[in-house]
Amino acid sequence: MLTGVIIMVKYPSGSLPIFQKDFKQPKIRKAYHHKKEVNFSDRGMTLEQQINESNQYYLEKGIAVVHKKPTPIQIVKVDYPRRSKAVIKEAYFRQASTTDYNGVYQGFYLDFEAKETRNKTNFPLKNFHEHQIYHLDACLKQAGICFTIIGFTSLKRYFVTPASFVISKWHEKNSSSMTLEEIENNSIEIKSGFHPTLPYLEAVDQFIADRKMNNGK
Amino acid sequence: MLTGVIIMVKYPSGSLPIFQKDFKQPKIRKAYHHKKEVNFSDRGMTLEQQINESNQYYLEKGIAVVHKKPTPIQIVKVDYPRRSKAVIKEAYFRQASTTDYNGVYQGFYLDFEAKETRNKTNFPLKNFHEHQIYHLDACLKQAGICFTIIGFTSLKRYFVTPASFVISKWHEKNSSSMTLEEIENNSIEIKSGFHPTLPYLEAVDQFIADRKMNNGK
Repeated sequence: MLTGVIIMVKYPSGSLPIFQKDFKQPKIRKAYHHKKEVNFSDRGMTLEQQINESNQYYLEKGIAVVHKKPTPIQIVKVDYPRRSKAVIKEAYFRQASTTDYNGVYQGFYLDFEAKETRNKTNFPLKNFHEHQIYHLDACLKQAGICFTIIGFTSLKRYFVTPASFVISKWHEKNSSSMTLEEIENNSIEIKSGFHPTLPYLEAVDQFIADRKMNNGK
Repeated sequence: MLTGVIIMVKYPSGSLPIFQKDFKQPKIRKAYHHKKEVNFSDRGMTLEQQINESNQYYLEKGIAVVHKKPTPIQIVKVDYPRRSKAVIKEAYFRQASTTDYNGVYQGFYLDFEAKETRNKTNFPLKNFHEHQIYHLDACLKQAGICFTIIGFTSLKRYFVTPASFVISKWHEKNSSSMTLEEIENNSIEIKSGFHPTLPYLEAVDQFIADRKMNNGK
């Protein structure tokens, strides 16, 4: 039996980074303010934590509204102890039908999946689930801005890759991974930073600019 | 102790209509195909069921990608019985920080909350939670298309109301509800139908047309 730990950090998404054995509570930024020389790069946070912190920053600053979707759970049994709140006593993880993140930025619909790998030379495509690829494709057809954020944790490098490229690689025969070089050539690299932790909207700005140029809008 | 029932209908949202005492499994549409004279109006479905069915229809037809967000759950204890999948043994309902539905339609970000009332003359504003109002407001500021779907179940009438109106009523002093007349005057009424069950995108089309007219886009 594995017993998770309740982590009381409130994530903007309403979702907890559960079951991460090495989860560290994100350090409070203010404590860093005087140490300009420190390298803030990712601060030992998982990619999910970095994105959640970035989304919180974007939300508080009125820049964008992006949330992580809660994990879908199938609830079977609930207890209502007297004077106490409901306790779920039996439930199961369910398969999601979408990506983890979506939201709105300057009128644009954003939809993305985030994945990290310890691999240094390529990103295995099996890390994406079929439903995520299908969902990204469906959102692309509705003119959403769809992408993936891939983190090479060993290299501390982060790439925002248009979903169109990932989908085409996914459907490519005999292709089980994207090489780092392919990702470099087809993505916008973002640097893990401070405010926000992972400024992925910089890449989105580029996608929007490209789209406007292509559409003549 | 209340024991819920596992309902195996697969919702597009990955979310089950749990804990609805009178939940009926939506009848399969094909069974109705030959009975043209039947009044299909809402077919005893809850508003949530109607919206989920509509979203499934929109998704299958490639018209829009809208999903209900899963209920956020805080997981505390999980068992991994041998050769069997994980069983959540202790978890709690958490407060959501968004509305229930969002998605993308023709490049537009959609965000909405759906509520129903048995009331016949007004809709009590306390049915909306503060976080839902704040979230709709934040999405409006990002130029999302934000609204509510209010169902008067006793009247079998359904209204798509722009979030701007709901938010202004929410902030109005001494205002505890929206009257049916106010809702009629500030909404687009939609008829519960067949394909899709609740064609709320007809109202969205009108919002988009209004916006284009106002923006001169």
